[in-house]
Amino acid sequence: MQVIGAHSADFVWRAAGAVAKAVSLGGQAEVIALSYGERGESGELWKVEGQTVANVKRTRHAEAEAAAGHLGASFKCMDFGDYPLQVDGDRLLAIAEAIREFAPDVLITHTDTDPFNPDHPVAHAAVDRARSLAAGAGVSSAFATIKPPQLFLFEPHQPELCNFTPTVHVDITSVWDRKVAAMAEMKAQRYLQTYYAQRGEQRGNHARRASGDQDVRHGESFMRVVPQVVDEL
Amino acid sequence: MQVIGAHSADFVWRAAGAVAKAVSLGGQAEVIALSYGERGESGELWKVEGQTVANVKRTRHAEAEAAAGHLGASFKCMDFGDYPLQVDGDRLLAIAEAIREFAPDVLITHTDTDPFNPDHPVAHAAVDRARSLAAGAGVSSAFATIKPPQLFLFEPHQPELCNFTPTVHVDITSVWDRKVAAMAEMKAQRYLQTYYAQRGEQRGNHARRASGDQDVRHGESFMRVVPQVVDEL
Amino acid sequence: MQVIGAHSADFVWRAAGAVAKAVSLGGQAEVIALSYGERGESGELWKVEGQTVANVKRTRHAEAEAAAGHLGASFKCMDFGDYPLQVDGDRLLAIAEAIREFAPDVLITHTDTDPFNPDHPVAHAAVDRARSLAAGAGVSSAFATIKPPQLFLFEPHQPELCNFTPTVHVDITSVWDRKVAAMAEMKAQRYLQTYYAQRGEQRGNHARRASGDQDVRHGESFMRVVPQVVDEL
Amino acid sequence: MQVIGAHSADFVWRAAGAVAKAVSLGGQAEVIALSYGERGESGELWKVEGQTVANVKRTRHAEAEAAAGHLGASFKCMDFGDYPLQVDGDRLLAIAEAIREFAPDVLITHTDTDPFNPDHPVAHAAVDRARSLAAGAGVSSAFATIKPPQLFLFEPHQPELCNFTPTVHVDITSVWDRKVAAMAEMKAQRYLQTYYAQRGEQRGNHARRASGDQDVRHGESFMRVVPQVVDEL
Amino acid sequence: MQVIGAHSADFVWRAAGAVAKAVSLGGQAEVIALSYGERGESGELWKVEGQTVANVKRTRHAEAEAAAGHLGASFKCMDFGDYPLQVDGDRLLAIAEAIREFAPDVLITHTDTDPFNPDHPVAHAAVDRARSLAAGAGVSSAFATIKPPQLFLFEPHQPELCNFTPTVHVDITSVWDRKVAAMAEMKAQRYLQTYYAQRGEQRGNHARRASGDQDVRHGESFMRVVPQVVDEL
Amino acid sequence: MQVIGAHSADFVWRAAGAVAKAVSLGGQAEVIALSYGERGESGELWKVEGQTVANVKRTRHAEAEAAAGHLGASFKCMDFGDYPLQVDGDRLLAIAEAIREFAPDVLITHTDTDPFNPDHPVAHAAVDRARSLAAGAGVSSAFATIKPPQLFLFEPHQPELCNFTPTVHVDITSVWDRKVAAMAEMKAQRYLQTYYAQRGEQRGNHARRASGDQDVRHGESFMRVVPQVVDEL
Repeated sequence: MQVIGAHSADFVWRAAGAVAKAVSLGGQAEVIALSYGERGESGELWKVEGQTVANVKRTRHAEAEAAAGHLGASFKCMDFGDYPLQVDGDRLLAIAEAIREFAPDVLITHTDTDPFNPDHPVAHAAVDRARSLAAGAGVSSAFATIKPPQLFLFEPHQPELCNFTPTVHVDITSVWDRKVAAMAEMKAQRYLQTYYAQRGEQRGNHARRASGDQDVRHGESFMRVVPQVVDEL
Repeated sequence: MQVIGAHSADFVWRAAGAVAKAVSLGGQAEVIALSYGERGESGELWKVEGQTVANVKRTRHAEAEAAAGHLGASFKCMDFGDYPLQVDGDRLLAIAEAIREFAPDVLITHTDTDPFNPDHPVAHAAVDRARSLAAGAGVSSAFATIKPPQLFLFEPHQPELCNFTPTVHVDITSVWDRKVAAMAEMKAQRYLQTYYAQRGEQRGNHARRASGDQDVRHGESFMRVVPQVVDEL
Repeated sequence: MQVIGAHSADFVWRAAGAVAKAVSLGGQAEVIALSYGERGESGELWKVEGQTVANVKRTRHAEAEAAAGHLGASFKCMDFGDYPLQVDGDRLLAIAEAIREFAPDVLITHTDTDPFNPDHPVAHAAVDRARSLAAGAGVSSAFATIKPPQLFLFEPHQPELCNFTPTVHVDITSVWDRKVAAMAEMKAQRYLQTYYAQRGEQRGNHARRASGDQDVRHGESFMRVVPQVVDEL
Repeated sequence: MQVIGAHSADFVWRAAGAVAKAVSLGGQAEVIALSYGERGESGELWKVEGQTVANVKRTRHAEAEAAAGHLGASFKCMDFGDYPLQVDGDRLLAIAEAIREFAPDVLITHTDTDPFNPDHPVAHAAVDRARSLAAGAGVSSAFATIKPPQLFLFEPHQPELCNFTPTVHVDITSVWDRKVAAMAEMKAQRYLQTYYAQRGEQRGNHARRASGDQDVRHGESFMRVVPQVVDEL
Repeated sequence: MQVIGAHSADFVWRAAGAVAKAVSLGGQAEVIALSYGERGESGELWKVEGQTVANVKRTRHAEAEAAAGHLGASFKCMDFGDYPLQVDGDRLLAIAEAIREFAPDVLITHTDTDPFNPDHPVAHAAVDRARSLAAGAGVSSAFATIKPPQLFLFEPHQPELCNFTPTVHVDITSVWDRKVAAMAEMKAQRYLQTYYAQRGEQRGNHARRASGDQDVRHGESFMRVVPQVVDEL
Repeated sequence: MQVIGAHSADFVWRAAGAVAKAVSLGGQAEVIALSYGERGESGELWKVEGQTVANVKRTRHAEAEAAAGHLGASFKCMDFGDYPLQVDGDRLLAIAEAIREFAPDVLITHTDTDPFNPDHPVAHAAVDRARSLAAGAGVSSAFATIKPPQLFLFEPHQPELCNFTPTVHVDITSVWDRKVAAMAEMKAQRYLQTYYAQRGEQRGNHARRASGDQDVRHGESFMRVVPQVVDEL
């Protein structure tokens, strides 16, 4: 499983449970951030007098690495800058290369729309296109290709305004404490810790209603982009 | 698995593979037709001089039963009449009762729109509502309830005009001969046998492209209505 | 060409140009109203003291007949009542029978949604379903069938709120005076005469922009439901 | 303000804040339930041995009345029955009459879709149509009409699956305690009290992000159906 | 209020009434054009023999300034060029800076789609993203931020083809003469003066139907992008 | 008729019938490829040891030219490169110039979305914008303009996942052998020959159902973007 977010903390709120669950079941997970969110999404850090971009990046790197550690995933950052995040041809190829290298079975990124964030849609467009470049057209080609990863979009902050309709709920009950631990590393964003703790309970409720399985206590929701191929319905 | 179609042959073209696959993996399957499609969808039979509605129903029943037999499923018909199919309050409750009785894990029916068929959307609306009546609201109630079945819509004849977007491809390679045998029972609809044989190959191709699994030769496509609950992405 | 509206004046504002054009090119046209709009859409008539439903119907019939006459079309009313219009099984079959009898090449009705009118969506649903009943499934059947009419939706009063996207503009420049004459018969609705005269100019402007043909002065817009079959793009 | 829900508790979870706010600002509010939700939505009550429908209705009536009382609203129930709720022509007219009588400036009901509830879409369709019947076509008519109420849809349990996109957040910070008190009356649905308390905080967060106003602590979200008419953007 | 259009005349047809109304009620308004529309949208001027781009720009500047003057707004042009309008990273930041500087409560721009114009969607994308850059993520950041402006899209020439659904009608009756005066400054586009004068009447009609307020004579329609936060429904 | 595809073989599978039909009825047709698809879509060729990009391009050019020859169309390639195809400002103007030069009545390209191909949406966006640049705004301008071509999107490989809804079926029965011959030139893509031969039969079936015309044996389906302007419905 590979998670590619615009900023270094995105994976924590939106996919930490799915990552921890995959790892707990024997999978490998890599988190990639296209930027540290250093300018626009580092809230509390910018209340510190004399703060610098370099220092914010350092702090954010440490936080993300610690959070990923709780989940059993590796973390790396492409450091493309934020607010605005810009992805030109070379950066697109770098993202495709990162996907090709890890060759994930499951790839997760942002939705295509977000009226509250200038960088999330840019990340979506780049990752979606990079995935196609890495997987190729299903035929021999001039470059190495990988098996097409399943593509999922994680939950944005305001789902209904971001073209997000959940099509999969992951039962993350058994790894809930790891998500809580990962969120706790994001010291500058305490409010979001409460917000996404509540959200985890609510998605658990939704999963119970959809499945009738009363044992689900916490959930995370995703939107599948490419059809699933199954042996049986 | 339970499949509820407007007319007695619908399940053959649209879900025979998924039914056969479920049965081959140890599941149980029931096919319910709301009508025999005796007036509007019995093509060749109405070219026979002196044909009667009663006789068409008899023939259609035998064909559907034989087709279901090839798949390992049982078949029953509610005989509500077709062109137009009408579902009032009592019939709605009868459909809910049929769902409650079989208590399927997976329930399959038509899409909500079909500009080429007056009965398919009626069937969709009735089955969708009956499913909620059978499953209840996830709490104790004045009537018996079942675990909410997963709801899927099968592929209509002209998908793009019927609000159909495939979200699941079932690999039916191993049971393809059973679908072919089931389709062959529909003696009055030879053209559709060719049409859906081709469609099975094409959905196999789509499944290969989506999964990268070159062993899929035949597929059937479905649209999931309620989110899936999974242990892992 | 057959136009079926919920109320007796609907065809005038929304399709008079297309009707007159079809007739002027040698076609035959029939207008059917499901009701006279006697209770809800007869504005000025209800300002007359002592007005009665019977009298309103008489006046509306005369107006609609005169308007249809200007266009070269016949008019009949099913008189099902309005506000609310209700269509049960028998009425559905009566509409299907009317379509089967006239066997139009082109059938026109309301959009499926209208937050400003309780009867228009009811008319849409009935006509859409009746059309399928009249045309059958393209195979032999227990009842007589006709060649499937092309289905169009005419322009509602507030298009963007009614799921209306124009896909065809008809150039009605050569029959504009007939539409104006037909609208003038609707004596109780003067404001709408101005409104739809403006709308005719605007749709002419849209048609000029779409086609580059500067000779179009007046247009009427429609939304095609079932794909068009052509010899050449 | 008039709120019309399918079951007697719907208004509490979905619109109690907006009701209390309207009343606190000098408005009048009426809550109408089409049924008591006696069969399908009375959870805990059906765990009581020997429970009867009549008794459940009595309990639900008392609870709803008490909840409405906390908000300053009146409550009445049409008692049409639930699971399934059925609305025929006479009931449609009764709903229209109730709207005409109260003549609300603001009318609130369910979304048009809900894959988890068989009655909510039925209530939506009936209220939407009844509103048009009560308001008429903006011209004189055979029946009394009222000024068209603004139509809003309240938040369903799983918004993204119910065609719900919030277009208005109401700041209910100042009446939050009243919503909490109203929810507490629903003794049989403790879990929902927690759920919607969290939801109120989250919608408060969304309202802060949308407006930049840091004083909003709790919110309720609605979807406006008919365009708003304003003096100024 | 700040209006940002692709070409210097866009604000006149689409938002002059809303601008004049805001100013008449004590607000301040700024109009920004990303280009003069000098190459593609200056119609009559290019019929003048020996016409030059520099001269067209001068004329267009004078016209837009005069029009803005009638409304009580200031006007400035970024002069990025048109047909095609191109917005790279630096220009994006310049637009963000312009928004940050004016810090509007209300920001208005184009829809995201327009099959008849190559520049309007480019302007939409740039303004939407620039707004997020100017407002930030609602937390402290490395750059100055403003309170998030409410975002509206103004009415395109062919609404149904441009993803435009009106959600707000502004009553511009009291400032209609100012819009007429502003439109009259666009001497090279006489036809549009008639077109948008009619449109103003029609939107007035729509506003009357939506609100029941018979005093609205002229309206302008907008589509709100981010939910509204209100004290009361 | 002008067809502009991302890769040199796209026109064969998706529009060869429409091209051949237009030519057979006396029209002229030009096919433009933005790239040869040399890196990503040349399947079998890359199984040849020692293969080079230059050689693949040569082979693909010959194949496309031969295929276009069967249809009676000319072929040229802009050679912009593939996987990824990139279109900057200069290339956009080059495409606009190519459209202006040929001044087609009908212009055909890709859909706006394709989760299986990184280049198709890029081609769509460029052609859509270039068309507007070539046609201008319907008024005099600083550059030469052409009559706006009708814009169609051809059928993608997986229509429902690519925002493709067919709105026009072309009857290609009389030129079916030419499409077969053109497809046969694509020697490296044998599977697609079978796939699109089946698809041609299926679209013929859809066209028979839509029109009731039993003589249609093969069809090709397209999605019209800008409304059609007609003399009569």
